[in-house]
Amino acid sequence: MPASINIVDRSSLTQGLYKELVLDPKQTAIVTIDMHRGHLDMDVATMPAKPEDAKRVIVNARAALDFARAQGMAVIHVILVYRRIPGLGSEGMVSPFWKAMHAALGEEDRLTPGRKSTVSEHNIEGSPGTEIIPELYRPGDYVIDNKKRLDCFYGTDLRFLLDTLGVKNVVLMGINTNTCVLNTSFTAFNFDYRVVVLSDCVASMYGDDLHVLGLQNIARCLGWVISNEQFFEKIGADRQGRAILPTQAA
Amino acid sequence: MPASINIVDRSSLTQGLYKELVLDPKQTAIVTIDMHRGHLDMDVATMPAKPEDAKRVIVNARAALDFARAQGMAVIHVILVYRRIPGLGSEGMVSPFWKAMHAALGEEDRLTPGRKSTVSEHNIEGSPGTEIIPELYRPGDYVIDNKKRLDCFYGTDLRFLLDTLGVKNVVLMGINTNTCVLNTSFTAFNFDYRVVVLSDCVASMYGDDLHVLGLQNIARCLGWVISNEQFFEKIGADRQGRAILPTQAA
Amino acid sequence: MPASINIVDRSSLTQGLYKELVLDPKQTAIVTIDMHRGHLDMDVATMPAKPEDAKRVIVNARAALDFARAQGMAVIHVILVYRRIPGLGSEGMVSPFWKAMHAALGEEDRLTPGRKSTVSEHNIEGSPGTEIIPELYRPGDYVIDNKKRLDCFYGTDLRFLLDTLGVKNVVLMGINTNTCVLNTSFTAFNFDYRVVVLSDCVASMYGDDLHVLGLQNIARCLGWVISNEQFFEKIGADRQGRAILPTQAA
Amino acid sequence: MPASINIVDRSSLTQGLYKELVLDPKQTAIVTIDMHRGHLDMDVATMPAKPEDAKRVIVNARAALDFARAQGMAVIHVILVYRRIPGLGSEGMVSPFWKAMHAALGEEDRLTPGRKSTVSEHNIEGSPGTEIIPELYRPGDYVIDNKKRLDCFYGTDLRFLLDTLGVKNVVLMGINTNTCVLNTSFTAFNFDYRVVVLSDCVASMYGDDLHVLGLQNIARCLGWVISNEQFFEKIGADRQGRAILPTQAA
Repeated sequence: MPASINIVDRSSLTQGLYKELVLDPKQTAIVTIDMHRGHLDMDVATMPAKPEDAKRVIVNARAALDFARAQGMAVIHVILVYRRIPGLGSEGMVSPFWKAMHAALGEEDRLTPGRKSTVSEHNIEGSPGTEIIPELYRPGDYVIDNKKRLDCFYGTDLRFLLDTLGVKNVVLMGINTNTCVLNTSFTAFNFDYRVVVLSDCVASMYGDDLHVLGLQNIARCLGWVISNEQFFEKIGADRQGRAILPTQAA
Repeated sequence: MPASINIVDRSSLTQGLYKELVLDPKQTAIVTIDMHRGHLDMDVATMPAKPEDAKRVIVNARAALDFARAQGMAVIHVILVYRRIPGLGSEGMVSPFWKAMHAALGEEDRLTPGRKSTVSEHNIEGSPGTEIIPELYRPGDYVIDNKKRLDCFYGTDLRFLLDTLGVKNVVLMGINTNTCVLNTSFTAFNFDYRVVVLSDCVASMYGDDLHVLGLQNIARCLGWVISNEQFFEKIGADRQGRAILPTQAA
Repeated sequence: MPASINIVDRSSLTQGLYKELVLDPKQTAIVTIDMHRGHLDMDVATMPAKPEDAKRVIVNARAALDFARAQGMAVIHVILVYRRIPGLGSEGMVSPFWKAMHAALGEEDRLTPGRKSTVSEHNIEGSPGTEIIPELYRPGDYVIDNKKRLDCFYGTDLRFLLDTLGVKNVVLMGINTNTCVLNTSFTAFNFDYRVVVLSDCVASMYGDDLHVLGLQNIARCLGWVISNEQFFEKIGADRQGRAILPTQAA
Repeated sequence: MPASINIVDRSSLTQGLYKELVLDPKQTAIVTIDMHRGHLDMDVATMPAKPEDAKRVIVNARAALDFARAQGMAVIHVILVYRRIPGLGSEGMVSPFWKAMHAALGEEDRLTPGRKSTVSEHNIEGSPGTEIIPELYRPGDYVIDNKKRLDCFYGTDLRFLLDTLGVKNVVLMGINTNTCVLNTSFTAFNFDYRVVVLSDCVASMYGDDLHVLGLQNIARCLGWVISNEQFFEKIGADRQGRAILPTQAA
């Protein structure tokens, strides 16, 4: 594998696409992906994001969510939670890949380079990791808490809920850019939703390179990657947007 | 976006995982993804891979497929084919992203940087683009020709066929590394198959950066990325493997 | 089991529902279910309907389909076709129920009381049974020919095609009332389509009691069961409807 | 519609199939379907079963479940629960059929002949109807509480859980025989599980005719309909079975 890779410049493509993007708040929902303490609270995280990423993402996500609710958009939190099965352990441990990784490698050398992590103890039912970061949740938000793998649609009622709400545009944020956010983007694209990812509100515990890949992959192949500021602009609500902007992280 | 990105070194992780990989040919199938003339034959391709990639992938894929058949593995070709709908055009054109791209950008500046491409005329039912590259098909292979978006499982009987065949290990090849191969890898992972991608037999029309990062994403998050030679070794069929190796591209 | 059963009178419910039924032809498609020679042509059928049912259904289906096409409705034929898998036989034979039935019972005492039938030789790829009854097919109709079990949505792109066409109302006909038609009705209901079944155009090879059940179950729990005449009336096209009515069977 | 219908005698078929039925407790799970107070507790039920059916089903289900747990079988409770959506009401009310029924008919003349019922207030999140009947639940049972329509697999992680547990045989009980039990039987059949329905533990609020015909449909087309006693016998645990039999209702 090469030590570094040049990013192909597709700014003409993404700028052209940006002009075509229209977001009617009545047809738009924010889906937050695994914004729980198991990734974002360093005190209990079993699959921790980088601490500085966790901080950045929480601040920006809060701004985007407060804005979205004020515009009448639905907010849906999707959270991975695992049952513990007698004689098996976590539901995560039937995955051949995760099982092989636990067999081969110590907790320092698994999914999160430079930080300890574990699948087998991650987000077990009732554990603190399964709690949504408190400042991101408000009464009236929807919660789907039976995500089991990388795709928010797999084994959940997310598609049913989106269609019940009349949603055409899915705005994604959360952890991790290149797995759950990307996989959910693929499926939302396949289902013919308009896919938007908020770059200020995503991060990857797998490494910065895969974070950048995830965003490049979405922007050049299947959807729109925009900043919080662009999101506020597209919703066409300058006043509310501007009021919120100061709270964004640099 | 940065002009280049450093690849995080996870060789310890991938080497540890490689040792854990066991492939029983009776539980293993090769799934080829969109290895049709619409990507790989420059005379008719409407979404062309790079010509040198097309050549490399066809030669290596042929070697891997001939080997797999000789070992009794099932080979399944999954192909995207679009109906033309009166008053709408190609089934592809209901996708909000592809529609926006066609509205905003000319054929030189769409999905394939540096080469012309079109979604609206891509792999329409009956067109030459929908034909599997002849040297990759043999009687006895299975064909699934109703793929509609990026995921080989979506709207097809692929999962049904894999389970009918008793397959636990899905070996993927084809076009494009970072979209259809990656999306199919995600879904196969979510369904708890063991996911293997043959790096010699995949390519991306979207750019070399997304090809490399697609493989990194699979190898570090959800499956095994191996060369043809490693595939032959893992199947444990040295003699047959060695006989085929000389036909591989450099 | 009782020898006979009284049907609960729910005419008030079904009459109330009938008044609420509105069918805009632009949002309506006919889905024909397994109207192939394997059920309906006594010369080759491996799972034959009763001969008089086959005759009735074909005549009425033709009338309804000709009418629907004249009104601009889409017609989608869904057909079960099985691959023959080396060492296994038909794809149908991995079903534990069908396997047990073949182990336990001779061809005279299986799914079709009073008539010989076989799952293991039913609608194998390339066999005459897989052909759509010719008078029911017209160029411009859509064909989905990879149905594998009882639900037209399972493992197929039917939902994708309906949504691509903008369909909200699914009008069903075909074989068998109480299995494939009923199962497809359930799934269409679950997906929030409006479900209509044409009683003149369905039949069951399993027995008249289950045919009646299938219709009762749909009409009282999940959709609308109407005659061809009611269908013509609801589409609001009296003239065309009347022109076609004389060709209906008694 | 006829006032009564003769049941076709298929005892030869069902007896042949019964001999083929083998149930290994380690590969068998009981799935209870909507055994909540919304159907079974006359004090709060918004879609009530007949009171005598509720009583019979609870007594028999308790016996079967206690037996199953003693044999080490997994027990999975699947429950319908609806969110209340601002401006829309219950998630149930986007269904075109249920919406039409509410528009056309009063609460005395809807799904449950002879008893009042309502979809719009049925099993709203947090309401008492969503509680599992207490004597049927034991710690260690699994609960899936996001069923939204008639199929226990649709929008839930039921298939994932069954496969995680290594289940091949799905034993169903609950409400209603001809809708949720039948629809779930269809899907379990389509997914190639062995489908068993416990006739002592199912009932239909839609009428006795549809209950009987629902069981006929399963027994003659896709699975095994057996009594509690037959279930105990098949599990091959005579002693435990016999100990429990006296608690069964007549």
